[in-house]
Amino acid sequence: MDGAQEAQNREAFRQAVVNTLERRLFYIPSFKIYRGVAGLYDYGPPGCSVKSNVLSFWRQHFVLEENMLEVDCPCVTPEVVLKASGHVDKFTDLMVKDEKTGTCYRADHLIKDFCKEKLEKDPKITEEKATEFKHVLAVLDDLSTEELGAKIKDYGITAPDTKNPLSAPYPFNLMFQTSIGPSGLSPGYMRPETAQGIFVNFKDLYYYNGNKLPFAAAQIGQAFRNEISPRQGLLRVREFTLAEIEHFVDPEDKSHPKFSEVANLEFLMFPREDQVSGRSARMIRLGEAVSQGIVNNETLGYFIGRVYLFLTYLGIDKERLRFRQHLANEMAHYAADCWDAEIECSYGWIECVGIADRSAYDLRAHTKLVIAPVKKELGLAFKGNQKMVVEALESMGEKEAMEMKATLESKGEHSFYTRSSKGGDEQLNVFRFPPLVAPIKCTVFPLVQNQQFEEVAKHIAKSLTAAGISYKIDITGTSIGKRYARTDELGVPLAITVDSTSSVTLRERDSKQQIRVSVEEVASVVKEVTDGFSTWADVLWKYPTHSSAATED
Amino acid sequence: MDGAQEAQNREAFRQAVVNTLERRLFYIPSFKIYRGVAGLYDYGPPGCSVKSNVLSFWRQHFVLEENMLEVDCPCVTPEVVLKASGHVDKFTDLMVKDEKTGTCYRADHLIKDFCKEKLEKDPKITEEKATEFKHVLAVLDDLSTEELGAKIKDYGITAPDTKNPLSAPYPFNLMFQTSIGPSGLSPGYMRPETAQGIFVNFKDLYYYNGNKLPFAAAQIGQAFRNEISPRQGLLRVREFTLAEIEHFVDPEDKSHPKFSEVANLEFLMFPREDQVSGRSARMIRLGEAVSQGIVNNETLGYFIGRVYLFLTYLGIDKERLRFRQHLANEMAHYAADCWDAEIECSYGWIECVGIADRSAYDLRAHTKLVIAPVKKELGLAFKGNQKMVVEALESMGEKEAMEMKATLESKGEHSFYTRSSKGGDEQLNVFRFPPLVAPIKCTVFPLVQNQQFEEVAKHIAKSLTAAGISYKIDITGTSIGKRYARTDELGVPLAITVDSTSSVTLRERDSKQQIRVSVEEVASVVKEVTDGFSTWADVLWKYPTHSSAATED
Repeated sequence: MDGAQEAQNREAFRQAVVNTLERRLFYIPSFKIYRGVAGLYDYGPPGCSVKSNVLSFWRQHFVLEENMLEVDCPCVTPEVVLKASGHVDKFTDLMVKDEKTGTCYRADHLIKDFCKEKLEKDPKITEEKATEFKHVLAVLDDLSTEELGAKIKDYGITAPDTKNPLSAPYPFNLMFQTSIGPSGLSPGYMRPETAQGIFVNFKDLYYYNGNKLPFAAAQIGQAFRNEISPRQGLLRVREFTLAEIEHFVDPEDKSHPKFSEVANLEFLMFPREDQVSGRSARMIRLGEAVSQGIVNNETLGYFIGRVYLFLTYLGIDKERLRFRQHLANEMAHYAADCWDAEIECSYGWIECVGIADRSAYDLRAHTKLVIAPVKKELGLAFKGNQKMVVEALESMGEKEAMEMKATLESKGEHSFYTRSSKGGDEQLNVFRFPPLVAPIKCTVFPLVQNQQFEEVAKHIAKSLTAAGISYKIDITGTSIGKRYARTDELGVPLAITVDSTSSVTLRERDSKQQIRVSVEEVASVVKEVTDGFSTWADVLWKYPTHSSAATED
Repeated sequence: MDGAQEAQNREAFRQAVVNTLERRLFYIPSFKIYRGVAGLYDYGPPGCSVKSNVLSFWRQHFVLEENMLEVDCPCVTPEVVLKASGHVDKFTDLMVKDEKTGTCYRADHLIKDFCKEKLEKDPKITEEKATEFKHVLAVLDDLSTEELGAKIKDYGITAPDTKNPLSAPYPFNLMFQTSIGPSGLSPGYMRPETAQGIFVNFKDLYYYNGNKLPFAAAQIGQAFRNEISPRQGLLRVREFTLAEIEHFVDPEDKSHPKFSEVANLEFLMFPREDQVSGRSARMIRLGEAVSQGIVNNETLGYFIGRVYLFLTYLGIDKERLRFRQHLANEMAHYAADCWDAEIECSYGWIECVGIADRSAYDLRAHTKLVIAPVKKELGLAFKGNQKMVVEALESMGEKEAMEMKATLESKGEHSFYTRSSKGGDEQLNVFRFPPLVAPIKCTVFPLVQNQQFEEVAKHIAKSLTAAGISYKIDITGTSIGKRYARTDELGVPLAITVDSTSSVTLRERDSKQQIRVSVEEVASVVKEVTDGFSTWADVLWKYPTHSSAATED
């Protein structure tokens, strides 16, 4: 079978897949009743389900399993943010125009197509020319504007549709531009990636994480790239859903406590040196890749392993999946090391996930450009506000004020109320979310700081993750009353306090009632209640209650 | 307590909620390190979880429970689509400009603020003036451009920040505009609603539903509105997630088979007539509202009931939730009847869900403007393609061809392969999705068309819904082999065939193996396998196998 026949085979097989996908409405070219728009696709019913399954599993596998902080930022982004990140100046592709019709093409695509065509279909090609075209294909990404222009001239490449001459290449910014607000004076763009939303929130997220490293933040959302010439079906489109994780780590210590869990995975890796010396991808054990310095550090290695597990759980064929290291000249200016998960499909090996050690490039870029001070400590703002509530209450008649106060405390609004602390000197906030809505279903506290209790707490945390329950673990030495107040304010319905190694207390948020449950059972009791199979009243009846008098303050 | 004090109380209480939400990172003003952008907010970790919980429950409560067809379309939309829907011409608010600084304001907001201020804070206001201001507030939405301009002049309203004179009001289109592709010649907008994506796909969805009415389609996604002056925190923002359902029904028959399931719900309703005659919202049983003609028809009533259940499950206080009917002058030009679910919060009664009988306005608008014929029958396109595969195979050497064919059939790519039909005359497509990814987890077929089997199938369908398993029911008289082929092509891992009233067969997609399971048990067996608690091998070992020889063709 020669190359041309193999390509034809692949193309035919791809067409069979594409036709099935389109006929069963996995996807639909968008706006097709209006002739469609290149690079935009709708997902139909089965496509929506697949997408939603993949995203749920992504949340389970990465966000929940690693206790990551998720954020969800708007797509509309003011220019200043993308100026800082470098996108306004550098997020471009080189474009050429048909000098007569104005039709636009990507300069590198034209050269690529030309070289491939020559290599595949020109039987009279000399050995020397073939070597040259292969070399051009290999270094295409590195060519400058001028070099690309020179190649187009040298090879006599013209506009594919009309054979008209082409302009010299010039940069075209791939961001969709728009204008924010009615004045027309605030330029903005649709975000080209979701990571910037994480970087601009770094300080708040760091605070949320108790001012401690390491932590990871994640975002799933739409990203927009106004491609010059969309191609390859769903692979190069103008709008897509992107899922990004930024793991912030101490630059002096890139070890990872869970690396041992992935160290024995063995899969196809394609290190830089093997690529340069013309070898193929080979099976490497991840632990060895890190210890031999092929992968820069444990944290990077850990995420490579987690991505491998994620992709293979989703049904990616292990034999057609490899992790390829970026070549030195391929790597972005900020990266210390970068590996792409590549999947072999009918278009060849395609990058699906990029895993890079970005160093602190982005944080530094935003820090340099920040023009407003970060809001004063939020805790202070809140305390000032408590004062405002009190003042409003004082300005009323006494009876009315007492009534209003009672209503606010006991009822509040749909999901929010306040109640007095045990001493009565403070109003505590409570979100009364039903378990269905609650952002975190359960918190885990060791009653006092001690290694035994901490181990029990971690054991329980593990069984909560396995049961798919989002939780927060609080091992600070703060008083248990304050820790309850903190979780009430987040609307967490249940709290587990570890006060022995065999059984724990389980406390319900609104009633403050507590029951005693064995360590082994507690995750399933939490699941029963938060999944709605039992009410709190049901479990109260089943388990011995625990006197809470001593613990709530 | 007078009005001013009550307003102050509400404001103080709202501030307590807002401060808690911001301090605990439920939400964050977007890009705040760059001074922020009005009307754009990020969700922090707990906000993301709440949002994701609400959306999952929305999918469970509406899409899965009602077997709706979900679609997911891009936000970037070409002008032609939004021209047809009326948004390019009519999706505007009236704006006035500070004549010296150019600052923009919404004309109706300025008049509203002026009247409210007078009513609440002017002790010398005459009875006559008070009546006039109340009337203006009531009819504000109906005033024309000229009438709004006249009021601003009459009342001497100036720019709030500078007291400068204001321009006459003029329409400002609320869509974010952009340009699609590199030419600069294809204007586009960020979609202001998600419903249009459903309407433009109507024909394909109708086909997907077997060319039968009624059916419902749903879409969750980002929507964008370039508000002139965003206000009220998260209530009036420039980008938000919208969840829309369009239920397509025979205009001659708007009855609903499941209406009886909601007919006994009783909640606060606020019919048009009660509003006009100055009465308050009152408790009405939904069944009576429809039989008395207060709600136009059963289908509209059914969705009002389902929305009521949805909101109250989420924790909305029943006493602060009402369904208010639009007044005749308030209703969009296409609507036959319209009800808003309104929730009372610190901003007063706020519309959260709109439920309208839109008649066929949108479909007609797109049908009128369609400029390209709908793609030829997809089935044909597919058959043509089978031919292409065969031709490619024929052009190879015989041995190679057989090898390639075998590989394609047995392995394919990651999730796709083909296999011969029993007769060997057709290649059947199979998506080999793991249950985790599969868009639909299970199909249910009665073996032959007969009422008893159909009832068993519906009973099983109900228990699948209760277990949270997406399924498809196929009661066409097509041969069972063809029905298996259809579900294999969608990648459905399991199929239940009802061939008796006590037990059924359960067939696995890739092995085509079948086991026999009791009707009562089958949903839990499906759940075990699709949730990953058991493998197919596990259940094969537990249940008697069923000879499939007779059924696969």
